[in-house]
Amino acid sequence: MTESVGIIGAGLVGCLAALAFAKRGYRVTLFDYRADPRDEATTDRNLRSINLAISSRGISSLEFVDDEVAKRALRDIIPMKGRMIHDSSGRQESQIYGLFGEAINSIDRGLLNNNLLDELDKYDGTNDINLMFDHKLVKIDFGEKQQECLFATTNYGMKTYDFDFVVGCDGAYSATRYQMQKQVRLNYAQEYIDCCYIELYIPPSPEYNSEFNGPFAIAPDHLHIWPRDEFMLIALPNADGSFTSTFFGSWALVESLVPSKNKVEEFLLANFPDAMELMGIENAVRSFMDHPKGALMCVECNPYHASGGRAIILGDAAHSMVPFYGQGMNCGFEDVKVLMKLLDKNKNRTEVFEQYSKQRHEDLVAIVTLAKNNYKEMSHDVTSKMFLMRKKLDGVLGKVLKGKWLPLYTMVSFRDDIAYHKAIEISRKQTAILKLLQAIIIVAISASGYKAFGYFSRLFKRLSALQKHST
Amino acid sequence: MTESVGIIGAGLVGCLAALAFAKRGYRVTLFDYRADPRDEATTDRNLRSINLAISSRGISSLEFVDDEVAKRALRDIIPMKGRMIHDSSGRQESQIYGLFGEAINSIDRGLLNNNLLDELDKYDGTNDINLMFDHKLVKIDFGEKQQECLFATTNYGMKTYDFDFVVGCDGAYSATRYQMQKQVRLNYAQEYIDCCYIELYIPPSPEYNSEFNGPFAIAPDHLHIWPRDEFMLIALPNADGSFTSTFFGSWALVESLVPSKNKVEEFLLANFPDAMELMGIENAVRSFMDHPKGALMCVECNPYHASGGRAIILGDAAHSMVPFYGQGMNCGFEDVKVLMKLLDKNKNRTEVFEQYSKQRHEDLVAIVTLAKNNYKEMSHDVTSKMFLMRKKLDGVLGKVLKGKWLPLYTMVSFRDDIAYHKAIEISRKQTAILKLLQAIIIVAISASGYKAFGYFSRLFKRLSALQKHST
Repeated sequence: MTESVGIIGAGLVGCLAALAFAKRGYRVTLFDYRADPRDEATTDRNLRSINLAISSRGISSLEFVDDEVAKRALRDIIPMKGRMIHDSSGRQESQIYGLFGEAINSIDRGLLNNNLLDELDKYDGTNDINLMFDHKLVKIDFGEKQQECLFATTNYGMKTYDFDFVVGCDGAYSATRYQMQKQVRLNYAQEYIDCCYIELYIPPSPEYNSEFNGPFAIAPDHLHIWPRDEFMLIALPNADGSFTSTFFGSWALVESLVPSKNKVEEFLLANFPDAMELMGIENAVRSFMDHPKGALMCVECNPYHASGGRAIILGDAAHSMVPFYGQGMNCGFEDVKVLMKLLDKNKNRTEVFEQYSKQRHEDLVAIVTLAKNNYKEMSHDVTSKMFLMRKKLDGVLGKVLKGKWLPLYTMVSFRDDIAYHKAIEISRKQTAILKLLQAIIIVAISASGYKAFGYFSRLFKRLSALQKHST
Repeated sequence: MTESVGIIGAGLVGCLAALAFAKRGYRVTLFDYRADPRDEATTDRNLRSINLAISSRGISSLEFVDDEVAKRALRDIIPMKGRMIHDSSGRQESQIYGLFGEAINSIDRGLLNNNLLDELDKYDGTNDINLMFDHKLVKIDFGEKQQECLFATTNYGMKTYDFDFVVGCDGAYSATRYQMQKQVRLNYAQEYIDCCYIELYIPPSPEYNSEFNGPFAIAPDHLHIWPRDEFMLIALPNADGSFTSTFFGSWALVESLVPSKNKVEEFLLANFPDAMELMGIENAVRSFMDHPKGALMCVECNPYHASGGRAIILGDAAHSMVPFYGQGMNCGFEDVKVLMKLLDKNKNRTEVFEQYSKQRHEDLVAIVTLAKNNYKEMSHDVTSKMFLMRKKLDGVLGKVLKGKWLPLYTMVSFRDDIAYHKAIEISRKQTAILKLLQAIIIVAISASGYKAFGYFSRLFKRLSALQKHST
């Protein structure tokens, strides 16, 4: 008998999960509390988006679920091969992400979501995928065999649906998780970081021509960063020649600026003069003041399932992370792949859900922590000389010791065959070696005077040239 | 104008908070979702209680709020001056808590709660204290001036009350905290420890005579512990000659035993033969199988208030801890004292709530952690030779260096003038010294052979005798 699954949340992870379960013969119903985002009437944007950077884990998970869907859904991505650092005087410096030309890829969250929803509508399997919008989960009564889900609907009052099991993909404030807490002893932690974000916008340059797909106002093949220690601005390219830009800063800073138009204008011009030229200062000030102020929250929990194979949570519902490693969606997609691989090996859902919680936990803890730590790297370290020297050494070793030495960023973003927690383990050892090497170089320089300095400097230049040449 | 406060939860902390606010002129309404526990119709016990041990912080906070109330509410306490360790063969060994005869005090939670409720009924100030049972908080609409609280009542449907501010004393699963999370960016963590507890019971001995208040089946002036590493049994005296006993063990252990009457009986007889004689094996087995299985959860959060002085949470709602340091209620009472002291100095509630969150946080983190660590001490360390040697040294130093050297237990339980986080700081330094001393003694013994051993052993005995003499 085909089993029925209710998936809560038709965001990115919910859509992929729906497709994956449907392709395995389950009867899938996918719910969302919002209206269909593809309806013309509901397309007012929330003005609180941060462009996504999809990389190896996300892409390979999409492909694992459906190769053809992956191709179509990702048709609008824009590869970004490095960070472009903008200093206060407007100077730009490129820092390449991969050792061998790998790139992460910018895509608008809404666009990707709509692409996936279209794929679900088109899906033509044993059973259709049922899409239900305007359904807000209110309660789950967990039973031995059936899970009774109560929804508040916009047009039909309260409605009840029964499923063999429930999959919660309903984000950081997950209602599914909240319901599960009544059935399981769920360890749970939420932590806000003192950082507020505001969506800004860089329009296409006046010369932009969609036919030639250019020219862009700034390099479209980079993720742009204006790092200023305590705050920063970033910008990711869109397919229409524009950039979605996001400001990040402490709540105290934002709250001290926002009430005064003059203060905001002064602040933006003083810290991001080149970006203001691209945005137009009037628009930037208005957006900074009027756009909703987003909070950043980390969520960790354990386990991810309710006993008896009754329910499981995936994506942000299980591990909301700050956006600084560009892994939130990638990790959520990987959740689906990991779960499906387990289900493909073992038909006993109760066992599979238990295995999933056990196996996935250390990876999810690892990436949530990495993301938190990367704020410092993006807003500050990228301008520190010591950090950049290590980063360079790291890259050189990565090239010379091909495959035997892997920079952390490479492992996280471009090597979906290395689990997150493994990546951290490997990186810890390498960082110790890097720091030692760095110390030796510095001591050697100061001990042997100019001669040694000349030697090391030449050696270093040669190695760097080797690296630059091949990116 | 007198301000109005709605206090959610008429447990121990809620009652004390109600009294404290009323005495400061506030119009107090105290709500509880349960029926009045003093009504005859509602006195079925939940069979999931652990006797409380009230010590210095709890008592001094009660006295701080009202000296006379403290006297009356605490009339039934039974002092316990030490732990009585029961080994597997039934041998008992006393470990004294205080250096100078200090004791912690056993009291039944229900009894103390009823005493406090009676005091609220009797309260005769400018305004009466309003007691509302069968009122379950459903929602708070936080406003600039008024906080609109919606309750589901047993007899009157949904009801709304407005207050100037709300105080949440509604325990680990606090509804107030949940409502506050919609107004504040609240960091929050809940963690279950793998420990299940079951209430058991030791009846008064057949010879017990209430007139003479004795004899008790086991020493009434001790907290009894049957430590067995992976699990343990404890018992605290009641005023009627009985003992409330509690079993603690991992969920896996309990779940492996409970389905089989034979297994439970075998387990209890093998591990707690003397306790089984006191309980009666039939009763013990029935209780072990039938009584509800309690879970132990730690809760930490930050901040404890909503902005603008709109709401604050106290007691378990803010810091649920495991019961192994006997500080849960003591700490909750202290919350009330700390808050009142701040309010007595500053009438600006917005500022006071902010100060409270700032000042109280490190102490609450400290005690939640201490309580978690004490499970190992109670279930295991109390039988370790190295631990006991350090403990003895600790006690000797505490006596010899009167007031300059304070064992951690003394600071936490008997010195309400030392904040929890300070106690940990001091203890850390002392532990380092203790370990060093211990190492010196051990090295000295093994290096100098019997002669030195004899010397140290005599010294140690003399110091121990000194300690025993004065307790």
